[in-house]
Amino acid sequence: MVTVDSRPIGVFDSGLGGLTVVRQLLRRLPCEDIVYFGDTGRVPYGTRSREVIDKYARQDCRFLRSEGVKLIIAACGTVSSAAPHVLEEQPLPAFGVVGPAAAAAVRQTKNGRIGVIGTPATIHSGAFCRHISQLNPAVQVFAKACPLFVPLVENGWIGREDEVTRLTALRYLEPLREQGVDTLILGCTHFPLLADVIADIMGEGVILVDSGREAADACVERLAADDAFAPPAGGSSGERCSPCGRGGKYRFYVSDQPEGFSRMAGMFLGQAIDGDLRTVDVETMTVTAGQ
Amino acid sequence: MVTVDSRPIGVFDSGLGGLTVVRQLLRRLPCEDIVYFGDTGRVPYGTRSREVIDKYARQDCRFLRSEGVKLIIAACGTVSSAAPHVLEEQPLPAFGVVGPAAAAAVRQTKNGRIGVIGTPATIHSGAFCRHISQLNPAVQVFAKACPLFVPLVENGWIGREDEVTRLTALRYLEPLREQGVDTLILGCTHFPLLADVIADIMGEGVILVDSGREAADACVERLAADDAFAPPAGGSSGERCSPCGRGGKYRFYVSDQPEGFSRMAGMFLGQAIDGDLRTVDVETMTVTAGQ
Repeated sequence: MVTVDSRPIGVFDSGLGGLTVVRQLLRRLPCEDIVYFGDTGRVPYGTRSREVIDKYARQDCRFLRSEGVKLIIAACGTVSSAAPHVLEEQPLPAFGVVGPAAAAAVRQTKNGRIGVIGTPATIHSGAFCRHISQLNPAVQVFAKACPLFVPLVENGWIGREDEVTRLTALRYLEPLREQGVDTLILGCTHFPLLADVIADIMGEGVILVDSGREAADACVERLAADDAFAPPAGGSSGERCSPCGRGGKYRFYVSDQPEGFSRMAGMFLGQAIDGDLRTVDVETMTVTAGQ
Repeated sequence: MVTVDSRPIGVFDSGLGGLTVVRQLLRRLPCEDIVYFGDTGRVPYGTRSREVIDKYARQDCRFLRSEGVKLIIAACGTVSSAAPHVLEEQPLPAFGVVGPAAAAAVRQTKNGRIGVIGTPATIHSGAFCRHISQLNPAVQVFAKACPLFVPLVENGWIGREDEVTRLTALRYLEPLREQGVDTLILGCTHFPLLADVIADIMGEGVILVDSGREAADACVERLAADDAFAPPAGGSSGERCSPCGRGGKYRFYVSDQPEGFSRMAGMFLGQAIDGDLRTVDVETMTVTAGQ
């Protein structure tokens, strides 16, 4: 029996980086409704302890469940790496960016040398290394924490001609280049905005794996396997969603004031924000009106 | 009647930057006990909304009061600028870094052109400008937010030979230099660690005002006015504390795991941490043992 599931897809991140995953979802699943939660009041997660990340991830998932989502994507390298058990314990499909990106990298590497960059919490968790080793123990992984990349992106210094960003990237990436990696996982959903700068330094021969794009692909596969796509316009239910003019509905929640959200969000989303924007305190589950 | 007050001095910051104020207190008041709270679980404050900063500042002050302090220093440019009313409403002496630094800058400028640098929240609050204008309406103030300075310091990229830090500072400070300021307020307690880099760019003729040092001086003045110094060793009470071998006792609290605290704290404090270190959740006021 073919079924449909019109409930929204839930996506959360410590801040706005997860909107790069939403950007990929919009391309693949334009009919799906999406609820996004960006924990802008507690960003960044990448420098927090495991206990704090656990607590935050549980609260974020609880909030998205209260919004009636059918699936949760932790569009946050830190939660995906440091708190995968929180995702596994959810009573609905929930996954992060580590598994899909690790699989894509193993599939694409030719010389068996994969680089991984992310926040300090992501890198220190060793999650990407573990996933890759499970998929192919012969692959060698070279990991590097890049703590300044998130502030640089949030500061808008993302152009390939920006000397500060280029020098910072060079300092972080030089050791990976020297190791001869042919594939580099962008293990933080902020990093696709630095893809040009990173590609310039790594050179043409190195494939960049965007962990957000891989997570969006994994979402499509999971909905297909579960027969859980939203009904497309016109009523022909149960088929893979395709651009149909219906257009999904989008709700965006942040945990700090939404001032400035639209401008920053546009940078991550690659287009203007179109949907409701509200503030929520996920500790008390209190929602207040947004802009 | 000469009195003494052996209760500790309370100091808080969003993170570890406030330890630069403790560093100054240790020099001036070696007999005083100090309780420090660094809100490492919720750092940074500088990018948060006013509502969130208000809430956090209230919780931080409540926690220090529960530790029995006699005076509170908000060693945080953001709280000092964006939430001075929270300090004014405390039932004990409480002040931040804005007033003392503004007074010092007005005292020291010769050409009446003062620069101010800080986090975005500090600069957008306009607090330094207001304070300076009240002290001397003829003084011109040139303010510049420097959002990348805190991540650079926390990343340890603080050397004057660091090209990324130098270029970042040059981009922020060039407009202030062009305005011909002769005095520059370091309006964030992280910034003294970049003093060498900043001084190189601003040139010899420009005086740097360390807002943490000025706050420590204001603390000495307030305790003197209130006859509230701790009793020095030997029992001769009520006199200005001087190095006496007694040595104050120090308690450090953080809101995230204390791992790595000692290393980072040493950088800000200018010496190894000597005292108890514990974790506290200031929302629930729950203290857990530290290292």
